[in-house]
Amino acid sequence: VSPPGTAEELRRRLGAEVVLPDVPARYLSDATESRALRGTADAVALPRSTAEVADVLRACCDLGVPVVPRGGGTGFSGGCVPDGGVVLGLERMSRVVSFEPLLWRMRVDAGVTTSTVRRLARESGLLFPPDPGAGEQSQLGGNVATNAGGPHAFKYGVTRAWVTGLEVVVPPGETIRLGGDTRKDVAGLDLLGLLVGSEGTLGVVTSVWLRLVPAPEAALPVIALYPDAEAGCAAVERLLGYGLAVSALEFLDAATMELAGGGLPVDAPAGPAFALIAEADGTEAAAAALRDEVEDCCREDALLVHSPRSAADVAALWRWREGVSLAVEAVRGGKVSEDVDVPVERLGELLAAMEAIGSRHDLRTCNWGHAGDGNVHATFLVDPGDPAELERAEHAAGDLFAAALELGGTISGEHGIGLVKLPHRERQFSPAERALQERVKRAFDPGWLLNPGKKLA
Amino acid sequence: VSPPGTAEELRRRLGAEVVLPDVPARYLSDATESRALRGTADAVALPRSTAEVADVLRACCDLGVPVVPRGGGTGFSGGCVPDGGVVLGLERMSRVVSFEPLLWRMRVDAGVTTSTVRRLARESGLLFPPDPGAGEQSQLGGNVATNAGGPHAFKYGVTRAWVTGLEVVVPPGETIRLGGDTRKDVAGLDLLGLLVGSEGTLGVVTSVWLRLVPAPEAALPVIALYPDAEAGCAAVERLLGYGLAVSALEFLDAATMELAGGGLPVDAPAGPAFALIAEADGTEAAAAALRDEVEDCCREDALLVHSPRSAADVAALWRWREGVSLAVEAVRGGKVSEDVDVPVERLGELLAAMEAIGSRHDLRTCNWGHAGDGNVHATFLVDPGDPAELERAEHAAGDLFAAALELGGTISGEHGIGLVKLPHRERQFSPAERALQERVKRAFDPGWLLNPGKKLA
Repeated sequence: VSPPGTAEELRRRLGAEVVLPDVPARYLSDATESRALRGTADAVALPRSTAEVADVLRACCDLGVPVVPRGGGTGFSGGCVPDGGVVLGLERMSRVVSFEPLLWRMRVDAGVTTSTVRRLARESGLLFPPDPGAGEQSQLGGNVATNAGGPHAFKYGVTRAWVTGLEVVVPPGETIRLGGDTRKDVAGLDLLGLLVGSEGTLGVVTSVWLRLVPAPEAALPVIALYPDAEAGCAAVERLLGYGLAVSALEFLDAATMELAGGGLPVDAPAGPAFALIAEADGTEAAAAALRDEVEDCCREDALLVHSPRSAADVAALWRWREGVSLAVEAVRGGKVSEDVDVPVERLGELLAAMEAIGSRHDLRTCNWGHAGDGNVHATFLVDPGDPAELERAEHAAGDLFAAALELGGTISGEHGIGLVKLPHRERQFSPAERALQERVKRAFDPGWLLNPGKKLA
Repeated sequence: VSPPGTAEELRRRLGAEVVLPDVPARYLSDATESRALRGTADAVALPRSTAEVADVLRACCDLGVPVVPRGGGTGFSGGCVPDGGVVLGLERMSRVVSFEPLLWRMRVDAGVTTSTVRRLARESGLLFPPDPGAGEQSQLGGNVATNAGGPHAFKYGVTRAWVTGLEVVVPPGETIRLGGDTRKDVAGLDLLGLLVGSEGTLGVVTSVWLRLVPAPEAALPVIALYPDAEAGCAAVERLLGYGLAVSALEFLDAATMELAGGGLPVDAPAGPAFALIAEADGTEAAAAALRDEVEDCCREDALLVHSPRSAADVAALWRWREGVSLAVEAVRGGKVSEDVDVPVERLGELLAAMEAIGSRHDLRTCNWGHAGDGNVHATFLVDPGDPAELERAEHAAGDLFAAALELGGTISGEHGIGLVKLPHRERQFSPAERALQERVKRAFDPGWLLNPGKKLA
């Protein structure tokens, strides 16, 4: 809890240009609003430079006030929902510091949106592969803080793989730089990698050095529909077993297709179906050859195998896929949507477990996600105005985490622990492992002021 | 310094099967023997299981004895050269625990060699990309401890990108598991990534979960020779600027070619030349198309552009490339060979700096490495029996590190800090950055018993 008069004191020290006169509601929630999460804060600081970020951190460390770093606010784990203290928004640090397309590099400040980076890269024939969704809102600083993934992480890896440098402000207000334009660096302990995915608990990322790759000439998706999850999961394993190196391998179960399939830009047969989307990329010829192999491999037991041929149809398919989360949320006004990850061959078992968990807690469920990575957005539909249902969903999520761990998985493949999974963290980590993480946290933040109550207990 | 009678006490506690009766000389040095480095040890322990590794660590922590983990001993930074204490060799832990080719996964114990993993993968149509060299000797545990790279890291990334899980023994003898068969996991702080590249200072890696990818159908190298470094470096930038996504982009300067070029399986014109090797991989057709583009792009200013066509010729080229380090070493019996990394467009400036540094210290120099990654094996030839020359080489290495940092680079892109770069570490890291690394070290190893005097001061 912050001392009284915190906002005034911060405004006095940092100026009214940095500390807002009040606390606008939009800084108190993130995408977990769909499960009725909303915090409180003493103040909102919107620094315009790394020096101002350092000023904010220094003042807060001096006053003993918690700091909650905030990017685009698109997270699903409540990672930037404050519980008092100062919300430190990076949105004003939205400068593309440098872009060197001939050297496959870009440096951006933390508040630049994911789609800005992807668009700039694309316009120069390059690719920034991470595509976690909500690209117009999500910011690179937040992508780094959560080690964001997305459909194409299957081939290209998560955000960590594309970051070569970070500028970070650490308590009590020191600016450090980890890496930079070099593509390889093993001189220190990998603090850069440690910062990635640390959910704002170790430092405030202010600037990010990215590496890029030449964009593949073509990216050709195939969508296949199956009568049930068993047939769909068998097709996933078949694609892997045949050695088909697709760039994305997504799934949507029949319940998701029933809720969100209406907008699918494909003539699909009526009735519930389990969908796979596999994308082949590379040169025009290589992508087309792989696409044909993928089609062949998908055909066994399929109700439909379809490959959109025009660029517009391809874009429409991915736009629809991107909209699935919102479409599902719209059904009842809210959802509790998790992101467990299991070894890919356990996917079918996880989906079966979700069905049982939904029945047990009297909740409607649906699942979609990154099949090739075993990463499931396991979802319980809720009415955010119904506290009893929300509580049932929290219990159901606990059962889901237990099931994922039982199958050799993790409670989080993408969203992080944030606020919402904190009570479940000890299911995954032994006391010794938790103690080790907490000692590492204290090495950065001895006063435990950076995003307290998130990621680590 | 260990207490007297340490070896006897360890043998009493751990048994004569685990603790050798004496200290064979081969456990006292690594590839830095070429610069006359050799350590001392009280005992050598060769555990056969994770439980025995934990026993060794527990006994050493109890007795306050330093532990120096050791893989294949192929490192170039003295990372496993002991200064007293116990050498903990992982060589008996050489079990391939599981290999699931249809799921693109392998789990191996720490003592399995790199070439075993690569060969097994290849026999099933898969690729384990890291190829740091000395594959018959180097072990996966050591690859992890150094975050090993190699030529194909340019396209495929370093070891970190291929490790999904680690079993690690940490002080005072606790076994923890980080990750596993899942391909994505953001539930904890990324301690797995932190262990990778930590050079045995945080824990002893006992088992490694790897992900693999389908092997490309074809990998087609092009070798090009240039009259000087300027023309060669221009070709590197041209390849990038044209967006040619090669899998490896190597260089060898004229001095290296003069020393090691004799065995080059190519009809080359007489006289000194700067060499590039760029490899195109993918489907047969895509690789061939890219190879042709690479050839065209390389032709400007080239003395020769040649593409070996048969599989045997391709293998011969890479075998020759792999042998360059030993061929260079053979010239005078020793070398001080570093591994600085700079932004790729600064490569030419680094090579010019090396020439000046060699003249200044009266040392013969040569350079080769991973041009696309800006990673240079900057080398001073020495007679390991000449202490004055060795001392000049150490000073010269210091000047090299200063030059690399001046160009926005790092003092280590591949080998790590180990023993030999420790005096130079403060050139790269500010006091605050060093203090942060040291606090993280203490979070794992409060008694500072794991590989003391390496990586961190």
